[in-house]
Amino acid sequence: MTDPRFFPPRNFAALPPEHSDYARSRVVILPVPYDSTTSGWVGAREGPAAIIDASENMELYDIGIACEPYRVGIHTLPEVAAHTGSPQAMVARIEEIVGELIDDGKFVVTLGGEHTVAVGAARAQGRRIPGLSVLAFDANADLRDSYLDSPYNHACTLRRILEVAPVVQVGLRSAEREEHDYIRERGLPFYSPPEYRRLGPQGIADRLSDSVYVTIDLDAFDPSQVAAVGTPDPGGLLWDEVSELLATVARQGHIVGFDVTELAPALGPRANAQLAARLTYRLIGLAVRE
Amino acid sequence: MTDPRFFPPRNFAALPPEHSDYARSRVVILPVPYDSTTSGWVGAREGPAAIIDASENMELYDIGIACEPYRVGIHTLPEVAAHTGSPQAMVARIEEIVGELIDDGKFVVTLGGEHTVAVGAARAQGRRIPGLSVLAFDANADLRDSYLDSPYNHACTLRRILEVAPVVQVGLRSAEREEHDYIRERGLPFYSPPEYRRLGPQGIADRLSDSVYVTIDLDAFDPSQVAAVGTPDPGGLLWDEVSELLATVARQGHIVGFDVTELAPALGPRANAQLAARLTYRLIGLAVRE
Amino acid sequence: MTDPRFFPPRNFAALPPEHSDYARSRVVILPVPYDSTTSGWVGAREGPAAIIDASENMELYDIGIACEPYRVGIHTLPEVAAHTGSPQAMVARIEEIVGELIDDGKFVVTLGGEHTVAVGAARAQGRRIPGLSVLAFDANADLRDSYLDSPYNHACTLRRILEVAPVVQVGLRSAEREEHDYIRERGLPFYSPPEYRRLGPQGIADRLSDSVYVTIDLDAFDPSQVAAVGTPDPGGLLWDEVSELLATVARQGHIVGFDVTELAPALGPRANAQLAARLTYRLIGLAVRE
Amino acid sequence: MTDPRFFPPRNFAALPPEHSDYARSRVVILPVPYDSTTSGWVGAREGPAAIIDASENMELYDIGIACEPYRVGIHTLPEVAAHTGSPQAMVARIEEIVGELIDDGKFVVTLGGEHTVAVGAARAQGRRIPGLSVLAFDANADLRDSYLDSPYNHACTLRRILEVAPVVQVGLRSAEREEHDYIRERGLPFYSPPEYRRLGPQGIADRLSDSVYVTIDLDAFDPSQVAAVGTPDPGGLLWDEVSELLATVARQGHIVGFDVTELAPALGPRANAQLAARLTYRLIGLAVRE
Amino acid sequence: MTDPRFFPPRNFAALPPEHSDYARSRVVILPVPYDSTTSGWVGAREGPAAIIDASENMELYDIGIACEPYRVGIHTLPEVAAHTGSPQAMVARIEEIVGELIDDGKFVVTLGGEHTVAVGAARAQGRRIPGLSVLAFDANADLRDSYLDSPYNHACTLRRILEVAPVVQVGLRSAEREEHDYIRERGLPFYSPPEYRRLGPQGIADRLSDSVYVTIDLDAFDPSQVAAVGTPDPGGLLWDEVSELLATVARQGHIVGFDVTELAPALGPRANAQLAARLTYRLIGLAVRE
Amino acid sequence: MTDPRFFPPRNFAALPPEHSDYARSRVVILPVPYDSTTSGWVGAREGPAAIIDASENMELYDIGIACEPYRVGIHTLPEVAAHTGSPQAMVARIEEIVGELIDDGKFVVTLGGEHTVAVGAARAQGRRIPGLSVLAFDANADLRDSYLDSPYNHACTLRRILEVAPVVQVGLRSAEREEHDYIRERGLPFYSPPEYRRLGPQGIADRLSDSVYVTIDLDAFDPSQVAAVGTPDPGGLLWDEVSELLATVARQGHIVGFDVTELAPALGPRANAQLAARLTYRLIGLAVRE
Repeated sequence: MTDPRFFPPRNFAALPPEHSDYARSRVVILPVPYDSTTSGWVGAREGPAAIIDASENMELYDIGIACEPYRVGIHTLPEVAAHTGSPQAMVARIEEIVGELIDDGKFVVTLGGEHTVAVGAARAQGRRIPGLSVLAFDANADLRDSYLDSPYNHACTLRRILEVAPVVQVGLRSAEREEHDYIRERGLPFYSPPEYRRLGPQGIADRLSDSVYVTIDLDAFDPSQVAAVGTPDPGGLLWDEVSELLATVARQGHIVGFDVTELAPALGPRANAQLAARLTYRLIGLAVRE
Repeated sequence: MTDPRFFPPRNFAALPPEHSDYARSRVVILPVPYDSTTSGWVGAREGPAAIIDASENMELYDIGIACEPYRVGIHTLPEVAAHTGSPQAMVARIEEIVGELIDDGKFVVTLGGEHTVAVGAARAQGRRIPGLSVLAFDANADLRDSYLDSPYNHACTLRRILEVAPVVQVGLRSAEREEHDYIRERGLPFYSPPEYRRLGPQGIADRLSDSVYVTIDLDAFDPSQVAAVGTPDPGGLLWDEVSELLATVARQGHIVGFDVTELAPALGPRANAQLAARLTYRLIGLAVRE
Repeated sequence: MTDPRFFPPRNFAALPPEHSDYARSRVVILPVPYDSTTSGWVGAREGPAAIIDASENMELYDIGIACEPYRVGIHTLPEVAAHTGSPQAMVARIEEIVGELIDDGKFVVTLGGEHTVAVGAARAQGRRIPGLSVLAFDANADLRDSYLDSPYNHACTLRRILEVAPVVQVGLRSAEREEHDYIRERGLPFYSPPEYRRLGPQGIADRLSDSVYVTIDLDAFDPSQVAAVGTPDPGGLLWDEVSELLATVARQGHIVGFDVTELAPALGPRANAQLAARLTYRLIGLAVRE
Repeated sequence: MTDPRFFPPRNFAALPPEHSDYARSRVVILPVPYDSTTSGWVGAREGPAAIIDASENMELYDIGIACEPYRVGIHTLPEVAAHTGSPQAMVARIEEIVGELIDDGKFVVTLGGEHTVAVGAARAQGRRIPGLSVLAFDANADLRDSYLDSPYNHACTLRRILEVAPVVQVGLRSAEREEHDYIRERGLPFYSPPEYRRLGPQGIADRLSDSVYVTIDLDAFDPSQVAAVGTPDPGGLLWDEVSELLATVARQGHIVGFDVTELAPALGPRANAQLAARLTYRLIGLAVRE
Repeated sequence: MTDPRFFPPRNFAALPPEHSDYARSRVVILPVPYDSTTSGWVGAREGPAAIIDASENMELYDIGIACEPYRVGIHTLPEVAAHTGSPQAMVARIEEIVGELIDDGKFVVTLGGEHTVAVGAARAQGRRIPGLSVLAFDANADLRDSYLDSPYNHACTLRRILEVAPVVQVGLRSAEREEHDYIRERGLPFYSPPEYRRLGPQGIADRLSDSVYVTIDLDAFDPSQVAAVGTPDPGGLLWDEVSELLATVARQGHIVGFDVTELAPALGPRANAQLAARLTYRLIGLAVRE
Repeated sequence: MTDPRFFPPRNFAALPPEHSDYARSRVVILPVPYDSTTSGWVGAREGPAAIIDASENMELYDIGIACEPYRVGIHTLPEVAAHTGSPQAMVARIEEIVGELIDDGKFVVTLGGEHTVAVGAARAQGRRIPGLSVLAFDANADLRDSYLDSPYNHACTLRRILEVAPVVQVGLRSAEREEHDYIRERGLPFYSPPEYRRLGPQGIADRLSDSVYVTIDLDAFDPSQVAAVGTPDPGGLLWDEVSELLATVARQGHIVGFDVTELAPALGPRANAQLAARLTYRLIGLAVRE
């Protein structure tokens, strides 16, 4: 329906069918409203709907990168149903769906939900792309081997992803001592905001391979810019810093997919969902230019 | 898509395509996120999305009326775009769209937005159905001939509807003296909650014709049950009273369409949107039984 | 200024100067944004502004009592400054101001703020009107002799008022045992909602003298109707019950002044402030009919 | 510490050690901040802390039942850790802990969290008390055999409890058709609010055995009184109705334990937590009188 | 009234009559609670009251510019009534009122409400002051010729203002492609935050004429500092940057009036209204020094 | 109880008894939920509980200072009861309690509540430690000799503290002219954020003695990072700036105690409480390293 008396349908960026039909779209948005293992404050399951709603309140020419990302086509899938039997089963479901979409030629954008959903998405990518590396934005180390009785707790996300690909992390400022020891012993390239500032975006990009999966826990941002997360921690990254790093990585290599997770919209102003929507849109523009 | 790994799509009652395709649906939901003339507290434009979201959090067998209303098919249209040139033009747009849908054989449920949207919907019905009467739920008289420089202000809704059909109003408890004089001079059947309780549901039904359009300004409810309106006023109707009246009217005559308006979700708890969703669903069940 | 291009100024009921000038007004609204002794949840100091704002969103013909209370003139004073030296000094300030206003021929409506403000207002009345009785709406006994080291804590309000006039209380459902014993030993006419329902409004009116001061702690209402108070307690009075009791008392005797206290607007929906505004307006209509 | 310069410690009802030490307490409060299977709106994991905080804002003489329930001693345990491996493992943990407490002679009050936590508590009781019956307050049937891939989803709670004891349910107004058929086919004593009103509290009490476990999903209440639940549904029970039924059951039989679940505090005003605290306190008073 | 027992009356900066009487005041605050054409999130009509309330919570010596702006006298007018007939009529009303005030020798500060209100204010200035230029702060281009069927939609604000005076814009980071093409084709001096940083405040001031009208859409600020706007967009200007630019412009030329618009207070913390109040106060200090 | 089936008890940092018993702890947290003299927006009394709750959502290895501050033992006391007789009496109570704790060998961390609580804490330190200096973070001068009729109003905090020790203040950007004159006349080392940036952390540290008490009014921070205060003012300090200054002071001298005050949690997102918790934890780590 392109009747001008109606607003466009509810989908990412409020696109009309010619830019959002599954068949004609290079990009698919996969919303995963799952937060069953969250240990901090609650509500990430409302993240995907909030990001999509905010994206409808967004102008479509992105001045920062001088392009209109929607032109490659962006299809919004229905929300993945929670598997409430166990987080392991939920991760397996996400891996399966993302895998099917990759095999169908799509660029998959996963919207969480808690960070755990990244495990399924990264596994699907890692098992298909040899030499994949992962760029993770996160305030927390997420390196526990198990937490609250589950290896699939959101506090274990990067530990699980490390099993399928090397990870470069940016934004780190909070951990348990065991996690810190693990980082030091193995020399993992996990960087705090001050370390990132010293290293610069090119310094990070140099540590990545040609094919990069990007996983974003929004708590990597400073809480002044994203307060709506379960574990906000002061001293985080700023929008311009994240944007510049993503642009550098996109220029140099090949971003194969990404996720944006942990937005718990009720914990902050709506502007936080708007940032997440703009971030998603910009990263599509950087990764999938026509 | 009926893949069990996904939640149903975002539409009224979260129905799968077999119960929500336009062609197979007897009922259409027309969301109208318009509130440009509101004089009280703000936010009715967010009502339609809140009602639809809440409807997805609703079980589909309605014990109160012992049926599953969704079985007649309920299609959710995209939101009507605001015509910001003037409220008159917006009312004309709604009348036009509702008219097209009626002519296409649909039972139209309009979700406001401010009560003004009812003028367009009632006009489309009134010009097609001879002998139509209107049952209005409202806390306010809405009988000003013009307000804030416009005859299409939401404070004039029932005055405008009276031009196309006789109106029986229930829930009245707030007016300006001029409106009260207007009611008394013309002997309009406008009833306060205590008057309604004396008269009983049958007493109201007896004042209606065979074909009834129902227009609901949610401020008719007591603010304990619906606080999320721009002009809440204590001493309102209760859920059981409204339900019983609607059931009585549906048994006796023919409900040809209805609207549910003035939900401003940010002004009350989410439970208010849930009530509006349940009310919409129940009224579909009462009006369009298989 | 009666320029129709402007909304009326911010004052109770948004009245133009001809109905709100001090000299021409029979009624004065005295806002007292004070809550320094509150022991429960916080925020009653924002009550007066919230009630006045809500009153501007109110139609001026009150159908329930069939009159336009504003016609006697209602002047809104600026807010009384908090005396932060001690609650005793604050109570003295309120007593002084209310006394001056009474002596100037005004009917004084005090808007709290915490219930403590009623002590000053009731004292000013009690010391001027022989034989005064007090009708108190309250969920709590408020009969402690001292609380948190002060005899002017809001938990001592009715104990202090009892020192100047006999009190009939309605709405009681929460107390410490010492307070309950005090009530029983002295045979104080303090009634729970079920007791009030058995007794009826006339039963209460019969216990009052000809001159009645009314003090309303909004927690007397059921939290479904007023949640925005520091100590909400289930099982309270309903709007229709309070309205009927006030009408009965007004018919029989002489209401000399009143206060409405303890609205903490951030703790409930805006509709709660609207109820408080409507209650204030109705009680003006009942007490000061032309 | 009974230093009068300090407020009492944070525990249920803010009790000093002499009324809250584990050893001297007949009652234990077991907070279970778990909501991993929730399908509606989110946040029940914040329920226990909100109820306990509200209980500190409560006067301790309960006028409605004329007693001071705290005198039997009420000990507040730390919060049960979420087992995020699976809801089945979480239910097993709760059953184990409740069982240990029962075996230690305690009266156990479980505070949810989602309604699933009741399965563990009811099982622990059912396996120890022959002839136990269960009185359930709920808006939903909760009779699915499995939901979102788990038999321990909160939508299956009463189905699981039925496996250990017969259930009488009050408050029903929402179900899927399969659940409704299941009720009718087996003649389960599940009652809607209108049915309860016809039957009366004694009619319910007559259907229970001598030993009764009470499980309360707060959505049984009308949303005007409790909006802060994940699936609010209009037409619910009122405080006075629930109170009277509980008093009737307590007079007639033996209440062996209970739970209060599904408060999601961010979804409604704080007054909802206060009702839950008062309900918990009153039910202790009814069940464990000295 | 300068009775020390009362707080000052409700007006901008809570000034006593000697600093706020119309006759003695050089500055008038014109609140315009209008938001009928808003396309994003809702609530700018509550902006003026929120800014004025916040201004009462502000100390009056501004350390940043070392002066007490209130000494020139600041009078707060009542709120302009919404003309709900059409936005065109509303703009005409604002132009008329602002014109009358200018002709009466006042420095006019317009508080929105949506950005559309600036059209009326800028027209009144532009038609009186030859050679006027406009400095606009905005995240959006606002250059559509018509939007949602109206040339007076808030998305057309700068297009309409361009018809009366040249505009220099700062803060741009969001547009449709057509707007971007329009900017490029005509070489409009519209600058994104990074472009502003390169150019510096003097670079902007050099592009302005001697008489400058300043129009501020608060979404020019970074959402970390102002989240309470309908279309927040990351990557915005910071308080220190805006302050420095305003000081530079004020030093060099003559600021003839200004507006502060688009604050939708419910969408962010109260601190956002405080920033808007402080911004208004500082700009008065810069523009109208004694 | 170290049963792994339970979360740790509610105390600062959620520490088990071995790290939080009074006897074994070097640090005590003293929560003071007092805000009776607040003149701006309300709610600082809810600050201590919010900070403690947030601290339980915090990982315990602080990467920024590379240590685990909890290892010195942190005991959380119950909340100090409000003395509602007068702020003077309340300040005396705090001084008394803090003094007893110092005399018992503890490092005392006071959590406000309004800034007034710092007067009691600073006095207790100043009277025991010769040569003490005070480092104050504050947006306001707090130098009034009396305000709202009390010398113990929170607007007088630094004036009162100056009576026991010299004060260096950082963050100043708001004052009345009298306060500004007082600063200039006496040459008080009170610095605005730009002045601090010019001076650098070492420049501040050089103005302090060897023994430093730190008092933090959180409104010193920029409102983008801490909006939840009663008098937010733009142009404040950033987390990294405050952290660096505290680290510099801790390296050079001896921090003998500190307070964190004025968090009014309802006025901003929860992330603000998290910042306050992290700040408290970091300052413990800096001041009391093993």
